[in-house]
Amino acid sequence: MENSAGIVKPQYVTFRDDFSFESGRVISSVTCCYETYGKLSEDKSNAVLVCHALTGSAHAAGFHRADEQKPGWWDSMIGPGKTFDTNKYFVICSNFLGSCFGTTGPSSVDPSTGKRYGIRFPVASVKDMVKLQKRLIDHLGIEKLLAVAGGSMGGMQVLEWGATYPDMMKTLIPIATTHAITPMAIAFNSIARFSITKDPRWNKGDYYEGEFPVDGLAIARMAGHITYLSDPAFNDKFGRRYSAFEGFYDFNGFFEVENYLRYNGYKFTEVFDANTYLYVLKAMDIFDLSYGRGSLSDAVELIKADTLLISVSSDFLFPPYLTEEIYDIMKYQGKKAFWYNIQSNYGHDAFLLEFEELDRLIREFFADRGL
Amino acid sequence: MENSAGIVKPQYVTFRDDFSFESGRVISSVTCCYETYGKLSEDKSNAVLVCHALTGSAHAAGFHRADEQKPGWWDSMIGPGKTFDTNKYFVICSNFLGSCFGTTGPSSVDPSTGKRYGIRFPVASVKDMVKLQKRLIDHLGIEKLLAVAGGSMGGMQVLEWGATYPDMMKTLIPIATTHAITPMAIAFNSIARFSITKDPRWNKGDYYEGEFPVDGLAIARMAGHITYLSDPAFNDKFGRRYSAFEGFYDFNGFFEVENYLRYNGYKFTEVFDANTYLYVLKAMDIFDLSYGRGSLSDAVELIKADTLLISVSSDFLFPPYLTEEIYDIMKYQGKKAFWYNIQSNYGHDAFLLEFEELDRLIREFFADRGL
Repeated sequence: MENSAGIVKPQYVTFRDDFSFESGRVISSVTCCYETYGKLSEDKSNAVLVCHALTGSAHAAGFHRADEQKPGWWDSMIGPGKTFDTNKYFVICSNFLGSCFGTTGPSSVDPSTGKRYGIRFPVASVKDMVKLQKRLIDHLGIEKLLAVAGGSMGGMQVLEWGATYPDMMKTLIPIATTHAITPMAIAFNSIARFSITKDPRWNKGDYYEGEFPVDGLAIARMAGHITYLSDPAFNDKFGRRYSAFEGFYDFNGFFEVENYLRYNGYKFTEVFDANTYLYVLKAMDIFDLSYGRGSLSDAVELIKADTLLISVSSDFLFPPYLTEEIYDIMKYQGKKAFWYNIQSNYGHDAFLLEFEELDRLIREFFADRGL
Repeated sequence: MENSAGIVKPQYVTFRDDFSFESGRVISSVTCCYETYGKLSEDKSNAVLVCHALTGSAHAAGFHRADEQKPGWWDSMIGPGKTFDTNKYFVICSNFLGSCFGTTGPSSVDPSTGKRYGIRFPVASVKDMVKLQKRLIDHLGIEKLLAVAGGSMGGMQVLEWGATYPDMMKTLIPIATTHAITPMAIAFNSIARFSITKDPRWNKGDYYEGEFPVDGLAIARMAGHITYLSDPAFNDKFGRRYSAFEGFYDFNGFFEVENYLRYNGYKFTEVFDANTYLYVLKAMDIFDLSYGRGSLSDAVELIKADTLLISVSSDFLFPPYLTEEIYDIMKYQGKKAFWYNIQSNYGHDAFLLEFEELDRLIREFFADRGL
């Protein structure tokens, strides 16, 4: 456990006043699950907020139990002496609104009916997620964050934070993300959506008492896995190796890549909720930083924090040109913005893998600002 | 109907002797459906074979009826005065083995049982498809083809023709294709495979008397459509336009790109057979020109015909580097090979869209050879 954030415990806070969604819908109580690493300084000036991606959780670092196999999702980045050094910083990660890992979402029980929300839960947008995170930060008594950082859908939250609460942070670190996903990314999400909703066991979202739409969710996840990799990553990882359990010409024969997708697709169904997957895809699809703010330039104009934008050369889900777009606007507006395009074959997943590069870039960015 | 191949009729030939598949399996009779455009010269020296792609058919040009809405799939290329000029050439296109448009395949009735083959049909490889095409060419009394041309999976057949029957053609024109698809392409095919086989109505392939696995096949086709386009093509075609039949925050709201996928996915199920789709994906996955021939160089070495290789810059299903690989080998071996990478945003679909470029390249290639 050297350099580890150690054993951590999820914490919960329930806000018992109305929570209004961007859509106008309201629920009467919201629970937020979060974890923290390091110690909050007396003047509460050393906090960093880390935002998780599509299927992540508040468990960003350390272990829940000593015998846990895998640490939190960004453990390589958060811990004593690491990029987000818990000897210096108080790092917070909260499970976003609409998720299934402790924060209120479609798989939660609706207190007004005593039944699971299912698809009666309001669509939770990235703006809504950030709104709940803001409540958490207020609840912790923090007035200004040193940084808001995150990759992929986490990066969308970072951008939304910067535009909605521009005085709340010194820096923003959006990684492998965009102000609005491409129609190609939406197309992938469509495959996932159809897979789940056309699984007869989905039952319009009311499957909690019956059979779970395992196949639909597994296929949805398989489609996701394609987008997290890249052509070179597929070539390096699998090539055309065949896991010939019956033979090349056998109707049921499999290539290794298919085995990988199947294994990971079905494994995912053991931990993730199908309705939740539909909701988080929806949030990803409809996120548009410019929405309700005029143009993208108008939205970016709101940001005050120094911003380190990071993209990945082989990311075809969030291609680098999307990051470049934001960077160009920021530069044009005279903002303190920096853009680095990591040269990596890992594709979108690089934000979870290219730690050395991320570490170098973020350390330098922090050091230059005396953080 | 100016410049059109006009009204054409599918023709059929049934070979009543055993047909051995590459796998070793045998069926006792095979029917081949084909169409021809133009007139076969007396010395039978003006024939061009055109090979169709994954979900295509023998209907490459002209119309089946005067009131037919859409002509054959390569109508812009085949007809009087067109690239494959039917005033000069006798153009043949046959529906490949294992398809559902007239040639024997999984949706055909097995004469030995009186029932549809379903997944009892042998896996039909690209080599098997070419073997049946060769029987057809022999049946037509043609000893040498002027050209074998085709895109995507049609291009795989072109390459296989060149290596298996090197003396049977003067030229080869493989377009937007490869000697073996990438693991990323296999991954997409996996999504399709799981979608179909996990649809409960699929019923292990015996759905012909009952309900058709419409949802599974539609989702499979949707995944395919993603790969036929490209990031810029998605941006140009759809952007982030919303077909808000209920509203942005509505759980069931759709982006236009999703509407497109859904419409085309379900439309496809009206004309295509689900088992057939599984078979043709399988053929695509397992095709490897080098298989049983040593290395790829050894396989390419067999080719004698002058070869015009064409790729598409934005094709991420069959990326240009795959064509470059073959080209490099051919050049190293001193073959008469030419490679042209069409600059196009259309993605893989460009072989069905970039007619001007294709026309220019092929005309020049033919003219240089006095064809």
